[in-house]
Amino acid sequence: MIAPSATGTASPEIEFWFEFGSNYSYLSVMRIEDLARRHGVRVVWKPFLFGPVLHALGFESSPFLIQKEKGAYVWQDMIRQCSKYGLRWTQPTDFPRRCVLPVRVALLGAGESWIGAFCRAVMELNFVHDRDIDSREALVPVLTGIGLPAADILDQAESGPVKGRLRAQTDEARQRGIFGVPTFFVGPEMFWGNDRLDDAMLVAAGGKI
Amino acid sequence: MIAPSATGTASPEIEFWFEFGSNYSYLSVMRIEDLARRHGVRVVWKPFLFGPVLHALGFESSPFLIQKEKGAYVWQDMIRQCSKYGLRWTQPTDFPRRCVLPVRVALLGAGESWIGAFCRAVMELNFVHDRDIDSREALVPVLTGIGLPAADILDQAESGPVKGRLRAQTDEARQRGIFGVPTFFVGPEMFWGNDRLDDAMLVAAGGKI
Repeated sequence: MIAPSATGTASPEIEFWFEFGSNYSYLSVMRIEDLARRHGVRVVWKPFLFGPVLHALGFESSPFLIQKEKGAYVWQDMIRQCSKYGLRWTQPTDFPRRCVLPVRVALLGAGESWIGAFCRAVMELNFVHDRDIDSREALVPVLTGIGLPAADILDQAESGPVKGRLRAQTDEARQRGIFGVPTFFVGPEMFWGNDRLDDAMLVAAGGKI
Repeated sequence: MIAPSATGTASPEIEFWFEFGSNYSYLSVMRIEDLARRHGVRVVWKPFLFGPVLHALGFESSPFLIQKEKGAYVWQDMIRQCSKYGLRWTQPTDFPRRCVLPVRVALLGAGESWIGAFCRAVMELNFVHDRDIDSREALVPVLTGIGLPAADILDQAESGPVKGRLRAQTDEARQRGIFGVPTFFVGPEMFWGNDRLDDAMLVAAGGKI
């Protein structure tokens, strides 16, 4: 049984590995800040590119595209899951969407107070409004909408150092054994999938399974 | 939001497609009868052989064996899931275990009152006691233990008609688009994985997602 224990760390945290093209990451991006607040847990945002990790694992594309039975199911599942969590949902006409630029922006913002709002807005662009997310044109209104200097942030996001950080973060994902998104870590313990977010959060808050 | 609706059918039921070699089927086999009783839902037991379905989908073996990162994760996940559900757990030394004979027995018993007890006992042999499940020697004590005439049942299970029924049931699994186990159907609606058992049961009981 999972029950809260008395031995939480002083500053409990959960690592959240995700990318903007992933539909199950959409569910977790929309849920995680509220859940973390209720549990007194800090979210460490770890945006990365899942494509290169998939390639390294031997997949040429999303398993949802390669395995058509699973792919067909996933869109049915998303309708029900979004309904369960009270989230809006539109099946994207382009899947999985390229998301290099928003992932770079998220890398920049990972320690900032706006990271949650930014990630939710990008996810809604993709999975509610069915729009491109990988261009300055797409991201200027998102950044402006949360009160940020869009041009400055996008210039920084496209700079060499941020590109290097993204490569390093994606390499780290592979080295840590990530094989799907979203993935959560609480210390060394891996939890895969939005279906494990609640368990992971409980463990992060000092709970025992 | 999922909420019970007033429009349940007169005789709500859930189809439960599973096999004894599957570790996530273990979780659902142990949970489903109690859950169904609380929801007033009848379980329609649909044992089949997942191997031929996997082959037809282009896999040579369990994805947990082919994809070693996912495989390593699954055993960690099982420890936590079993703890959460209050189930015992031993990682099998032989995975996925052959299970043709117990699946045939389960086909015979699918409409009988002993089906739940039989399936739970076979699952515990595999995932608690780490023992072979695909022989008369393994199954005689299981059947005797629940008060059944073991030899008679095993003779029937090995008869031609039951073999034919198993082939037909496995073909049906493929035709219905099953790509993983366990899978639940409520009418035409598919739910994949033990993680969806609660949702499926709610829908079976007349709930709306």
